[in-house]
Amino acid sequence: MFNEKFVEMTQHGSAIRAMFMYGLERAKVVGPENVFDFSLGNPSVPAPECFNQSIQNILEEMDPVAVHGYSPANGLDVARLAIVEDLNRRFGTNYGINNIFMAVSAAGALAHALRAVILEEGDEIITFAPYFPEYMQYVTGAGGKLVAVPANTETLQINFEAFEQMLNPKVRAVLINTPNNPSGVVYSTETITRLAEVLEQKQKEYGHSIYIISDEPYRELVFSGVDAPFVAKFYANTMICYSYSKSMSVPGERIGYVVINTEAEDYPYAVATFAQISRGIGHNCPPSLMQLAIARCAGAVSDLSVYETNKNILYKELTRMGFDIIEPGGTFYMFPKALEADAKAFCEKAKEFDLLLVPSDSFGCPGFFRIAYCCTTEKVLRALPKFEAVAEYYKNR
Amino acid sequence: MFNEKFVEMTQHGSAIRAMFMYGLERAKVVGPENVFDFSLGNPSVPAPECFNQSIQNILEEMDPVAVHGYSPANGLDVARLAIVEDLNRRFGTNYGINNIFMAVSAAGALAHALRAVILEEGDEIITFAPYFPEYMQYVTGAGGKLVAVPANTETLQINFEAFEQMLNPKVRAVLINTPNNPSGVVYSTETITRLAEVLEQKQKEYGHSIYIISDEPYRELVFSGVDAPFVAKFYANTMICYSYSKSMSVPGERIGYVVINTEAEDYPYAVATFAQISRGIGHNCPPSLMQLAIARCAGAVSDLSVYETNKNILYKELTRMGFDIIEPGGTFYMFPKALEADAKAFCEKAKEFDLLLVPSDSFGCPGFFRIAYCCTTEKVLRALPKFEAVAEYYKNR
Repeated sequence: MFNEKFVEMTQHGSAIRAMFMYGLERAKVVGPENVFDFSLGNPSVPAPECFNQSIQNILEEMDPVAVHGYSPANGLDVARLAIVEDLNRRFGTNYGINNIFMAVSAAGALAHALRAVILEEGDEIITFAPYFPEYMQYVTGAGGKLVAVPANTETLQINFEAFEQMLNPKVRAVLINTPNNPSGVVYSTETITRLAEVLEQKQKEYGHSIYIISDEPYRELVFSGVDAPFVAKFYANTMICYSYSKSMSVPGERIGYVVINTEAEDYPYAVATFAQISRGIGHNCPPSLMQLAIARCAGAVSDLSVYETNKNILYKELTRMGFDIIEPGGTFYMFPKALEADAKAFCEKAKEFDLLLVPSDSFGCPGFFRIAYCCTTEKVLRALPKFEAVAEYYKNR
Repeated sequence: MFNEKFVEMTQHGSAIRAMFMYGLERAKVVGPENVFDFSLGNPSVPAPECFNQSIQNILEEMDPVAVHGYSPANGLDVARLAIVEDLNRRFGTNYGINNIFMAVSAAGALAHALRAVILEEGDEIITFAPYFPEYMQYVTGAGGKLVAVPANTETLQINFEAFEQMLNPKVRAVLINTPNNPSGVVYSTETITRLAEVLEQKQKEYGHSIYIISDEPYRELVFSGVDAPFVAKFYANTMICYSYSKSMSVPGERIGYVVINTEAEDYPYAVATFAQISRGIGHNCPPSLMQLAIARCAGAVSDLSVYETNKNILYKELTRMGFDIIEPGGTFYMFPKALEADAKAFCEKAKEFDLLLVPSDSFGCPGFFRIAYCCTTEKVLRALPKFEAVAEYYKNR
């Protein structure tokens, strides 16, 4: 008698998780060191020293009733203040405490931002392929319709021609993810500038606002020398959805936020509105201990250098082997073209070499695969002969 | 341009919070020791020693990447197992790991249980006055309609006559909260037995299941000698929504669960279905550090004795003063009749004596007020002259 819509969903698992589960089983047979699982985007480096130390200090120093007590619906002021000060210092923004709402990681942040802008069933949220597959659930769950602009497969920047054709008065927001999961590509200043220009013009034309919802869990994972503009500075109606999952390697702790620009149309009542949205979805702030820890080390990041090291090796070696790849500017993902048109068939073939890769179909961009290189460099180096063997197989078949 | 439905809600704050905010302002004028704020249900005792100690140990002993890593959608097995073993030991149940889904506290747990049973807009969830006001948001947010059975004001047990008249084929679940916020009353074995009998009969009559959703954050806050049956043992189609907020005094840490009976109709796919529901509401498990802590001390409870001490004093003294009260069997709430028909006017009058009480209107049961005595006994004792003064005022007016 349970709602059939949800029960039915249990039959369609995620391609990423299916590959990961296969890897666990396979490891029992051939040993974990012989399974080259690049399926999951699970950070592989420890949290910054400051994070665990802060938790220990909080538990020793503070009144336990206060530490574990209810947080106000908007989040703890001490955390909100520390975060906006960190943002202002790093990005020259003018955020105050009323710009920020603490959320249960990026998924929680997006749950609020999307419900704020979706007015009625069928309102559209545009995103750009390749995109994080959960966006479909996030938008549908909020009562909207996700529309994906086909990829610009030459650059994996925005396909503006297709985008402009798909814009229409039902579009309430554009959901971007830069640095991008699954491609690792960072939108350039040119891309963001043009996106802002297009949206400014369409806002005037339609007579209502169109938000940019900028999903930025990988913001701090940008490689050296890469042009990585701070999106909110380019467009007034911007909301940033952030998570510390990747920058601090704490994905299980569910700590993030929504920040809205002071210049945004709905700024005056935005945070209060987010707090109302919380009530209907069972969201009541991130854990207070985590908020208190963030308050003490908002600017800290893990040592993320292994991701760039891994990227450099994989990009150089796979390119040499004949893979066609747009060099990632950040994240811990890479998105090469599959060596046959059917990415699923390609990933099944790679599996025969114990190389676990995710086909790109669920990212809305067929013909590619994702490598999640959040692992040791040693594992990356040991996997190179496997990639070579797959490439050889396709050359010779 | 934000969704008007949510923006409009910002204009209608909670009566509880309004009283609490008034108390903070008033404390600046007369000093915090002179404001007798009994508005908020915020636990006043520390977490059990085991909880903080476990967190410290986990941070010292475990791999930090594993500690803060992603939790599976259903929760960490180690936490799920520890919880069901604790339940089985204490209540003689037969739960296994597939009965339990970790949730972001009771609000998160209810968000899942309600979405599972609500099939279409307008499906009804029946609850019993007096009830926790947020139930309205929880049910509406899940797409259902909350219907409240008027209180049996003689006992604050279930008003079965009204209940049976209100049952109809649109009812998908009955949402109970025992021990009850705001009344402190615990449903007796007789009440639960009769509730189960009525529902069994109606299930047959309608040809579909009607769940009991038992919201039990106060389960461990039962006073000595009180008959407090374990609801799930009386009725197959039961889901328990639990939070450690009150039993461990950690409301800010957002840790709880849903448990479904093995005998429930939808048991085989229930947990997998909850995991699917999560995707649309931005819910991704409680924080992993908190799950790991619960795994180490699932059976621990705070020293809750102060609540019973406070109850005894308040019940005895207020009764002596002429207040009409059904003696609470648990929680840290009491629900006396107001001394005039209009509970709001009564609470406004009490405010003049710096006694902050919550009128019962938002609990769906006019003419009462709630005292939240989660505070020191010293504060309770110092407040008695204030209650006496209010009672005197009403005698003499």
